[in-house]
Amino acid sequence: MKKPIKVTVTGAAGQIAYALLFRIASGEMFGNDQPIILQLLELPVPGPDIAAKLRPIQMELDDCAAPMMYELLLDTDRERGFGDADYIILVGAKPRSKGMERKDLIVVNGESFAEQGRAINDYASKNVRVLVVGNPANTNALIASHNAPDLAPSQFSCLMRLDHNRAVSMLAEHAKVHANDVSRLTVWGNHSTTQFPDVAHTRISGKPATDFADKQWLDSTFIPSVQKRGATVIEARGMSSAASASNAAVGQMHDWVGNGGTAKDSWTSMGIHSAGNPYGIDNDLFYAFPAQCDGSGECTIVDGLSINDFQREHMEATMRELIEERDAVKHLTK
Amino acid sequence: MKKPIKVTVTGAAGQIAYALLFRIASGEMFGNDQPIILQLLELPVPGPDIAAKLRPIQMELDDCAAPMMYELLLDTDRERGFGDADYIILVGAKPRSKGMERKDLIVVNGESFAEQGRAINDYASKNVRVLVVGNPANTNALIASHNAPDLAPSQFSCLMRLDHNRAVSMLAEHAKVHANDVSRLTVWGNHSTTQFPDVAHTRISGKPATDFADKQWLDSTFIPSVQKRGATVIEARGMSSAASASNAAVGQMHDWVGNGGTAKDSWTSMGIHSAGNPYGIDNDLFYAFPAQCDGSGECTIVDGLSINDFQREHMEATMRELIEERDAVKHLTK
Repeated sequence: MKKPIKVTVTGAAGQIAYALLFRIASGEMFGNDQPIILQLLELPVPGPDIAAKLRPIQMELDDCAAPMMYELLLDTDRERGFGDADYIILVGAKPRSKGMERKDLIVVNGESFAEQGRAINDYASKNVRVLVVGNPANTNALIASHNAPDLAPSQFSCLMRLDHNRAVSMLAEHAKVHANDVSRLTVWGNHSTTQFPDVAHTRISGKPATDFADKQWLDSTFIPSVQKRGATVIEARGMSSAASASNAAVGQMHDWVGNGGTAKDSWTSMGIHSAGNPYGIDNDLFYAFPAQCDGSGECTIVDGLSINDFQREHMEATMRELIEERDAVKHLTK
Repeated sequence: MKKPIKVTVTGAAGQIAYALLFRIASGEMFGNDQPIILQLLELPVPGPDIAAKLRPIQMELDDCAAPMMYELLLDTDRERGFGDADYIILVGAKPRSKGMERKDLIVVNGESFAEQGRAINDYASKNVRVLVVGNPANTNALIASHNAPDLAPSQFSCLMRLDHNRAVSMLAEHAKVHANDVSRLTVWGNHSTTQFPDVAHTRISGKPATDFADKQWLDSTFIPSVQKRGATVIEARGMSSAASASNAAVGQMHDWVGNGGTAKDSWTSMGIHSAGNPYGIDNDLFYAFPAQCDGSGECTIVDGLSINDFQREHMEATMRELIEERDAVKHLTK
């Protein structure tokens, strides 16, 4: 039997975690032969007893008798919750309350992610990999990473896989092909409406995507539809995406650290640290790039892609938003 | 590529389906190499437009770009919804409304399952396998099967896997072993509080389970806790089990028809037709028995287990309840 790994998930009482935890327990994220110690971590909050909120999740996880679940722990203490964690998925984040500006939300969540970064630095495995799902995910990842000075920024990433999957699916539908036939698509930048879904290098069944989709459709339908998909789902569903978000987290972690890996001739979109100004993107942002993963925790930005003026303009627009977010939390990233 | 299979799920707008559909789409139920045509079927109901309820599910399923999802269909028409289905999971059932007696609920749902049985008979693949999840699951399966005269009763089953997993998990916890170390446990009878979780033949790490659990604990804690687990979860959660129920459906279908199969030296608990009075159980009930599956749609009741007076008494108590339910819907099973 493989050595069990410890996986910590925050925000375990929320709807994304409800869609995520059972798929982790079933072995989808780390493989059917990888024993798991699953640690649910909730922040202590005023109001309803958090144990009462986590208890039913624990009961239902127990009721799965899942072959790869070796231990299930519940905690509200960061030292114990992050202690020796090999993998951490930061799902929990405060939602925007009434009258709160986006900028205020970034600061409120930023403080929490700064604390979490410090705790991860102090208590988690030195080889930990951290996926940030809670929004604003890119800037939360930046803050957490800055507050974990003993860890490399490459040990953190933020979830852009949902945007990536949405773009692949919409393009495939338009081209009347299966999503499997689409490769080399990139969603650049921020997990927000400024993100740039880019098909300039995309292949559909081995041919250029632009053979299947004209510029008019790409610019005026595809790009804005992908950018606004989150809001469209909220409008239809009455709440934000949960099952598709957790599906993206399963896919991202599987490729990054769960022995999955990206296809040899393709890549995924992954929010990672912009060290060294790849593609001219400002240093020290968590920005989504085309990335190849080997499944063992390493991933590299695909380099050498040609970038034209249209792409450059969109890549810089979403970069500027990330710089503004970083400026708003400057006091948390020192 | 394998030939795609058509899988129909009813009750697709409900919370169990929300926890189930994405796991079917990801390949957990039928395997990572089995293309799927997923058909969501909702009954036309007065009130909110059903298309509006299914639309966000469709959007989120699209947003997974799932490798094995080849088509996604939504319908409220039984002919199209069940048409050529290879596998059907009947999740949808009416909940008990205020002032309604359990007996009334059985009749109300019974009428719906009679109609569904007729439609499955007329439109589904002649080789279809049907899993009934909607409650009262055993009697709903009986009614559906009776109304599908061209199909064998062995093509239907009802979900007892959740009860089975709960019993395995509770016994493992008590014995301080992993659920994987528990084999040959049976939950007999009805998916209701009369069910009989039976460890007389159960092995824990190769030894008799009774070496790990005394009669006092088994009779006064284990049996009633398993029987009442559903209500305990409802009390803690504020609603009924969803993720653990869908996890059980994934496991059951995987073992029955998804190339999974039960372990050679063990079995699962499965609600199946009692043709031929196995273990003296009345003919023509859907009753949970110890069952072995080969993963290709066949399953057989484990025979030859010794049954003592204590077991006999419990097995008959839950049988009597099923006979009462059958009597209440006699008009639907002619």
